[in-house]
Amino acid sequence: MIVYQANILFTSSSTHFDVYERGYIAVDECGIIQGVYHTLPEDFAYDQLVDFGDKLLIPAMNDMHVHAPQLGNMGIAMDMQLLPWLNTYIFPEETKFADEAYAETIYYSFVSELWRHGTMRAAVFATVHTPATHILARAFNEAGMGALIGLVGMDRHTPATLCNTPAEWAAGMQTLIESLASMPLIKPIITPRFIPLCTPEMLRSMGEMAKQTLLPVQSHLSENQQEIAWVHELEPEATCYGDAYHRYGLFGQTPTLMAHCCYTEGEELHLMCEQNVCAVHCPTSNCNLASGIAPIRKFLQEGVQVVLGSDIAGGHHLSMFRVMQYAIQMSKLQYVSSNSQYPFLTLSEVFYMATKAGGAFFGRVGSFEPGYAFDALVIDDHGLSPHHLIASSPIERLERFVYLGDDRHIQHRFCQGQEITQP
Amino acid sequence: MIVYQANILFTSSSTHFDVYERGYIAVDECGIIQGVYHTLPEDFAYDQLVDFGDKLLIPAMNDMHVHAPQLGNMGIAMDMQLLPWLNTYIFPEETKFADEAYAETIYYSFVSELWRHGTMRAAVFATVHTPATHILARAFNEAGMGALIGLVGMDRHTPATLCNTPAEWAAGMQTLIESLASMPLIKPIITPRFIPLCTPEMLRSMGEMAKQTLLPVQSHLSENQQEIAWVHELEPEATCYGDAYHRYGLFGQTPTLMAHCCYTEGEELHLMCEQNVCAVHCPTSNCNLASGIAPIRKFLQEGVQVVLGSDIAGGHHLSMFRVMQYAIQMSKLQYVSSNSQYPFLTLSEVFYMATKAGGAFFGRVGSFEPGYAFDALVIDDHGLSPHHLIASSPIERLERFVYLGDDRHIQHRFCQGQEITQP
Repeated sequence: MIVYQANILFTSSSTHFDVYERGYIAVDECGIIQGVYHTLPEDFAYDQLVDFGDKLLIPAMNDMHVHAPQLGNMGIAMDMQLLPWLNTYIFPEETKFADEAYAETIYYSFVSELWRHGTMRAAVFATVHTPATHILARAFNEAGMGALIGLVGMDRHTPATLCNTPAEWAAGMQTLIESLASMPLIKPIITPRFIPLCTPEMLRSMGEMAKQTLLPVQSHLSENQQEIAWVHELEPEATCYGDAYHRYGLFGQTPTLMAHCCYTEGEELHLMCEQNVCAVHCPTSNCNLASGIAPIRKFLQEGVQVVLGSDIAGGHHLSMFRVMQYAIQMSKLQYVSSNSQYPFLTLSEVFYMATKAGGAFFGRVGSFEPGYAFDALVIDDHGLSPHHLIASSPIERLERFVYLGDDRHIQHRFCQGQEITQP
Repeated sequence: MIVYQANILFTSSSTHFDVYERGYIAVDECGIIQGVYHTLPEDFAYDQLVDFGDKLLIPAMNDMHVHAPQLGNMGIAMDMQLLPWLNTYIFPEETKFADEAYAETIYYSFVSELWRHGTMRAAVFATVHTPATHILARAFNEAGMGALIGLVGMDRHTPATLCNTPAEWAAGMQTLIESLASMPLIKPIITPRFIPLCTPEMLRSMGEMAKQTLLPVQSHLSENQQEIAWVHELEPEATCYGDAYHRYGLFGQTPTLMAHCCYTEGEELHLMCEQNVCAVHCPTSNCNLASGIAPIRKFLQEGVQVVLGSDIAGGHHLSMFRVMQYAIQMSKLQYVSSNSQYPFLTLSEVFYMATKAGGAFFGRVGSFEPGYAFDALVIDDHGLSPHHLIASSPIERLERFVYLGDDRHIQHRFCQGQEITQP
């Protein structure tokens, strides 16, 4: 048993921060939290006490929608909306992942960059290339970090070099399922690119695999108006974009992450609630690609679970703290444009999305309650407040770090109890 | 004459970048640019050639709306809209600037932080305190950086500890005008807090000083709907918020910066055009305070000059590169919500705002054309692209730096030809 002492903050619920000033967390040999305490119980038995002093100790970040092969596109070519952007900038880059050496370089960098920004687990899109996708899983495994690894299926309306067949996709998934069985923090996830790029055969094959394996599903939903119109054209019998996935068994039949949902309302919103489909809010991406902003407060009011994603390279930055900022800011624009009908998101709400809500896809992850994996960051916010003249509570210090901090202020990173040094 | 060699980018107009790959800039002994060249003219006479290799050389940033005393509020307390936010968080902090020792600490930190983020000149709000405002000017002068220094006038609807009288304000300005005469890069600027906090006597006194001294003016305009309603109540004869300033001689009678303009339209927009009043777009602040987003594309179409401001602590970050990102992103949300009526802002447009457009308030500043002051940043973007596998043009490298870079990538900073080391 190791005990860590620090200013501990986490969100067991989204409504507030649980704060333990100079408190204690006890972590067992399996990396599982045994207790969190304001003062250590008398005669508490432990092997080691690690004192982080006045620093902040918070749960690590979970990035629930991110495209690993787009690392090199990050921060450039922000001058188009979704569909031309994919064709002009993204697909040419993704074709390069047929080359395993290239994939190895980019994917190991990707995991290292996630680590740098304090993200210890992620739901990741790879490409259609099975060997490269194995490399991505290996990169996470060697780092000791957690991931849901998505071998992408896409077989229409896209360059032939970026297509796989349903059979190729299914065979690739089979090899992933086998090799990932020996990687405790890594699991495969069924990953249709999105309805416009998947034939009914591909979607059927994926739905069948979800049913047989109970693996989770991730894809894109109602991101952009041109995309939505295209889906209606391609799947005229579906009552909404979400229903198009649902009819193939890919919308909540197993745990499902749907990124964006900028235009989800009415029947689609109802179906998300009913099917317990999780919305992945990607506000940086939705700004950069001029997609629009998902009505997150409404989702929460209706009972839809919401998590956060960086969505690089639609998103321009891997830091989930940056994503949290935008989630709050975009909700403020909706607050003012709705004449205050939809209260804006609070810091504890977006923190909860990036920690406990997202973490639920990896088991008991993202909180510091007993039974949770110890995924944690030690934040040294020294220097963020001028000369420490401004007295600050732990919550204010966390807020300041979220808005002003960066990787320089993340001093230690833990995943499942293990300290992770730079991958 | 010193010649600098690098990948040179600047915006002589907002429509495009002027790019000189491995080009040359010649700077004379007064810090004035004599020429920019793709290849040095034959027999060109110079004293020294400084080769920055493959790095980027760009104009330094101009922050055209920023509250120096709010440095300690930066990144915290983002849970209110403008008026309660001022009363709850900002005014209590600003009262502390009656204490010169406190002012000295914060203001020297402020200048150092501006420097860190590559901002070499700024239009700054101080507080109502004359001695502290002198300290702020001194901090800029000692650093060798440029500023318009605003001794704030405010004399109603605010705690007595934060009020000055029109006579106190005018006397303070007189001392500033005198002492700033010996600081070549620093000038005073007439600074009413905003209409609701200034009596007609204060505004009259300010307008008269503007008329006599021809000093520029800065204030806040149409930021928030409650504020606008309050102005209509207080100044019922004014046809719009802008007209309330105009009637006192504070709206374009001398060069004028008006921050925010989130709700400027119709008559107010017309008056801004007619009076050549410059809008200071502060998108980070407008998000954080749930103010709304100014219709910048429309301003540009109508011929209003637009510059950029960080507006800390409404804005959460001093980096003007961060502000540029938000300016583009917010215009994209307007693009999509207006059904593509208002094309979104391009990188060259927002770069122009933060360099040449803002720089015009300091003389010939913000471009690399001959006759301009050499205010410049050397950007070392090494590491921003994974393993340099992604071939990038200088413009792509600049874009990537704007979205992903930070102070670590700014290697040298020049103001008026002098290299500025950390203040």
